[in-house]
Amino acid sequence: MKVNGQHFRTVWMPEPGIVRIIDQRRLPWAFELIDLHSVAEVADAIRDMAVRGAGCIGATAGYGMALAACEAQNMAQLDALAQSLIETRPTAVNLAWAVNRQLAVLRDQPVELWPSIAKREAEAIADEDAAACAQIGVHGLQLIREIAAKKPGVVVNVLTHCNAGWLAFVDHGSATAPVYATHDAGLKIHVWVDETRPRNQGARLTAWELAQHGVPHTVIADNTGGHLMQHGQVDLVITGADRVTRNGDVANKIGTYLKALAAKDNGVPFYVALPSSTFDWRIADGVKNIPIEQRGGEEVAWMEGTDANGTPHNVRVVPAASAVANYAFDVTPARLVTGLITERGVFAADEKVLCAAFTDAARASVL
Amino acid sequence: MKVNGQHFRTVWMPEPGIVRIIDQRRLPWAFELIDLHSVAEVADAIRDMAVRGAGCIGATAGYGMALAACEAQNMAQLDALAQSLIETRPTAVNLAWAVNRQLAVLRDQPVELWPSIAKREAEAIADEDAAACAQIGVHGLQLIREIAAKKPGVVVNVLTHCNAGWLAFVDHGSATAPVYATHDAGLKIHVWVDETRPRNQGARLTAWELAQHGVPHTVIADNTGGHLMQHGQVDLVITGADRVTRNGDVANKIGTYLKALAAKDNGVPFYVALPSSTFDWRIADGVKNIPIEQRGGEEVAWMEGTDANGTPHNVRVVPAASAVANYAFDVTPARLVTGLITERGVFAADEKVLCAAFTDAARASVL
Repeated sequence: MKVNGQHFRTVWMPEPGIVRIIDQRRLPWAFELIDLHSVAEVADAIRDMAVRGAGCIGATAGYGMALAACEAQNMAQLDALAQSLIETRPTAVNLAWAVNRQLAVLRDQPVELWPSIAKREAEAIADEDAAACAQIGVHGLQLIREIAAKKPGVVVNVLTHCNAGWLAFVDHGSATAPVYATHDAGLKIHVWVDETRPRNQGARLTAWELAQHGVPHTVIADNTGGHLMQHGQVDLVITGADRVTRNGDVANKIGTYLKALAAKDNGVPFYVALPSSTFDWRIADGVKNIPIEQRGGEEVAWMEGTDANGTPHNVRVVPAASAVANYAFDVTPARLVTGLITERGVFAADEKVLCAAFTDAARASVL
Repeated sequence: MKVNGQHFRTVWMPEPGIVRIIDQRRLPWAFELIDLHSVAEVADAIRDMAVRGAGCIGATAGYGMALAACEAQNMAQLDALAQSLIETRPTAVNLAWAVNRQLAVLRDQPVELWPSIAKREAEAIADEDAAACAQIGVHGLQLIREIAAKKPGVVVNVLTHCNAGWLAFVDHGSATAPVYATHDAGLKIHVWVDETRPRNQGARLTAWELAQHGVPHTVIADNTGGHLMQHGQVDLVITGADRVTRNGDVANKIGTYLKALAAKDNGVPFYVALPSSTFDWRIADGVKNIPIEQRGGEEVAWMEGTDANGTPHNVRVVPAASAVANYAFDVTPARLVTGLITERGVFAADEKVLCAAFTDAARASVL
């Protein structure tokens, strides 16, 4: 996608030994790139959320393994570096998926070939992520065309939560791919952007992305979606996912479950967009078995914004005398999900359907 | 309730011609009182949310009418001043209820008696509000005792949204009255406090209130309640209300509906606490017929907090290039409400039940 007219991905390797990322903590106030030179720096960037979002942290971890392939002298060292990357964030499955994919291609190769193999594999992971998101856009556009056909000439209203935009992937995004595709196809589309507390990825990242691409959108408090759905102001919900179990349960940014409940209560279609790398084929009950990351309370207690001069400031928004809890994700049960928009098409959130559509991936992962 | 050990109400008349309020816009950073000297100043204070919350704006409007009774020379002038108060906030019903109650007692009285009659009536409205909230505490405590009896010795977890604390009333609060009563009775209670975007009344007011009273509590993002309920960490939800229709539909701070859906989905009791002045007996379908106030987008786009030195600052948290919408309330359908905690007891959110329990009020209001 473009930033001020220039094409960018969220993560890439400008030269061997350097992983370059967009520092998403500084957006939308500043657009800054960071160069990471070691596995430790990559791990810090993921942990501190300089990069975030399922596909983006997967691709970044893939590139991190390309650095690990240079740092490690043997398999034990490589495994340890891999583990240090996996441990940075517990909920998103793409992270472990990308790291394990690198381990699998490196394991039986001579150590001196690791750097070149791992770099190539990292680029393949990133390219496949971008291609999968582009395909999600194709399938999602078809879906939105059907909804638009029922109200010709009238704007289609999509609600989204958090940022599953191109910043959360390598390019295009998952939830936003259908939005960009629809906008680019000349259909009228408007996006309700949940602010997405804490960390405000909706107000900070999704709104910024959509503005950069010229897509009409309105930022709302996270509390607002239920009211909008009750009053016919949402045609469909599309969110991303950090992990989807084989039965279709969806772990995503905290608060997604509440929007899914409201969609169900009002007959609004609730779609989740994801590349198949986000599936966790080993888990059949997401509510019980997906670990939910708890992050520091300061993400709730403090908020960053800009003053009237555009200078960023952190302000405390919770009294110091009060305790704070920060659950980063929740799980939306499959029964609330209308469909999963993947690179292979739109599927029901159902174990049989999903395992049939992704037999190869499911089998490879369980092996 | 007490502030730093001294008893306060949210609004009172320290001498004729002056209405004194706590400036709730400055909390929790500063505790400041404001004197209002005219109906226009009272209207501004309500519109700008220096006072807010169903009972508190009702009582403030009651005192505003005591000033109107001094300013007006005839019934037409009094009606005009009354109208200017009613128009300040469209959703909360206590406001119109208090103003109309004043008009009813003044209408057939000689103009020279208006000031003394209206002052007495304003004090009656405030006293009744405080007494009703105290009774809500009595009935709510009984309810919480029953829940506590099922898990002896274990803390009872209440989730609340927005501020229906004593700051939202004259004293005690509606949703918090059972909490304070439970805490004061020596039972173990802990409150999950929704931050409550926009305006953050939970993080700013409810957390401050509970801290002042020593009640254990944890501030969470509005997105969090569904996850907590899914995992058995909420024993009951208690919110307040800005208007409840005769069939039990509940208009309350935006986002209440989402918590009610989550409670229903997880078998968590969802209670709404209100003095009967919050009922609107004329309306039978809240989703269709309660007007939902839209407020300025700056309440979403800007946020107030304090820097590391405790100095308040406003920061912009939504990019200037993005549109913002600010719906202040939503309506929770009666089917999602376990019960209404009122000064007369706990009742089902059901037209027959409510009209039987409040025959006098319902009849008086329709007349």
